[in-house]
Amino acid sequence: MTDSRIFTAALLVIGDEILSGRTQDKNIAQVASWLGVQGIRLREVRVVPDVIDAIVEAVNALRARNDYLFTTGGIGPTHDDITVDAVAQALGVAVEIHPEARAILEKYYADKGGVNEGRLRMARVPAGSDLIPNRYSGAPGIRHGNVFLMAGVPHITAGMLDALTGEIEGGAPLLSGTVGAWVPESEIAGLLHEIERAHEGSQIGSYPFFREGRVGANFVVRSTSAETVQSCIDTLCEGLGEMGYDFTPGGI
Amino acid sequence: MTDSRIFTAALLVIGDEILSGRTQDKNIAQVASWLGVQGIRLREVRVVPDVIDAIVEAVNALRARNDYLFTTGGIGPTHDDITVDAVAQALGVAVEIHPEARAILEKYYADKGGVNEGRLRMARVPAGSDLIPNRYSGAPGIRHGNVFLMAGVPHITAGMLDALTGEIEGGAPLLSGTVGAWVPESEIAGLLHEIERAHEGSQIGSYPFFREGRVGANFVVRSTSAETVQSCIDTLCEGLGEMGYDFTPGGI
Repeated sequence: MTDSRIFTAALLVIGDEILSGRTQDKNIAQVASWLGVQGIRLREVRVVPDVIDAIVEAVNALRARNDYLFTTGGIGPTHDDITVDAVAQALGVAVEIHPEARAILEKYYADKGGVNEGRLRMARVPAGSDLIPNRYSGAPGIRHGNVFLMAGVPHITAGMLDALTGEIEGGAPLLSGTVGAWVPESEIAGLLHEIERAHEGSQIGSYPFFREGRVGANFVVRSTSAETVQSCIDTLCEGLGEMGYDFTPGGI
Repeated sequence: MTDSRIFTAALLVIGDEILSGRTQDKNIAQVASWLGVQGIRLREVRVVPDVIDAIVEAVNALRARNDYLFTTGGIGPTHDDITVDAVAQALGVAVEIHPEARAILEKYYADKGGVNEGRLRMARVPAGSDLIPNRYSGAPGIRHGNVFLMAGVPHITAGMLDALTGEIEGGAPLLSGTVGAWVPESEIAGLLHEIERAHEGSQIGSYPFFREGRVGANFVVRSTSAETVQSCIDTLCEGLGEMGYDFTPGGI
């Protein structure tokens, strides 16, 4: 782990079902949280339809400017599962059957009617790929250098992230601390800005909420330095107290 | 309404809280569904941090190739709310105080301590903008031509979408029909592909699930023609019946 270098990642969510509103995406939040623990910052997410050109364009734009690119969706057995083809095209490599993936699928489907043409699609990878274990169903995820192709079904994605835990180099994780207060954020906008400016390397986010007919906000401080986070939190609590607001370290 | 022209939109979600995983995005699904009803297809979503350059780049890329661009997030009163500045920069216009927005805020905050510097930020708009009514809290959304800036808090976003209903030109809405079956999608990948190819203008998506220890999938047919949707559904049900699978029109 290196302290000075910031590692970044992008996520590409592939699937008409997200863009039609049929399916509520759950992968952005889980990939984001997992990356945070690895010391990698999620810098950008794109959601694109099941269209080769759209995927290719996004893959190339995102991998060029991030250390890692993750994709979710489109690695199943049906005709709308075209992620492997699109990523291979973006990387400029052929698509090939991965022998280990084929063996995994043959074993998994042995008592389920065997491997047919659709199922064999799930053994196809961009040439030169490694596999990401899938503990929930047969088809593995795929790793090609710094590009990671994962399933779209959230619990399968989660299993693949688990399998990748500790396998990828990250930097100092971004630490965070939260203070919640029953205050309209617009009352203390000036205070937040002052504190952020006074603490180099800090970011302070303000997240308003409406509960029980009252207005409040959680203020989230982020920094790679625990000392900076603590100092921001202390200054903020002091300021809120002086202004007469109830606040809760840890957030409301 | 025109039948032949397809209207497209992009959505830009702005906010560190989504990229950190702290907040589960809910706006993609609700904006997508709303757009579908307006006869507008959501073609691409990007999520970017609270960073001017990232927002400017995304705004310009997305508005250039879609009929409409919607943004959520970053129009509040605090220092991390920079959407207005970034969009103005992308559009090449100045930022100005909108007199009607100022009047709305003065009224809204009259018995809440009045308008301070932070709150006045919410009256700032890219020059030449109109307002989008906000029925839940003071600060309005902003419309500049085909660019729509909305709040990030989902129920406020929903109110702004309501206010825009019927205000934006769309084409023929994309219709859909669903068939659910207790079948591994990999068993009928070939059938799905055949049906889609035999029906011009149709798209068939396959969405597997795991419930009660069994594998199933919902198959969603989309087309602007009701006849095409029905014919795909009929052919699919016939095929599933012939293969001996239980299926449920309308989805499981």
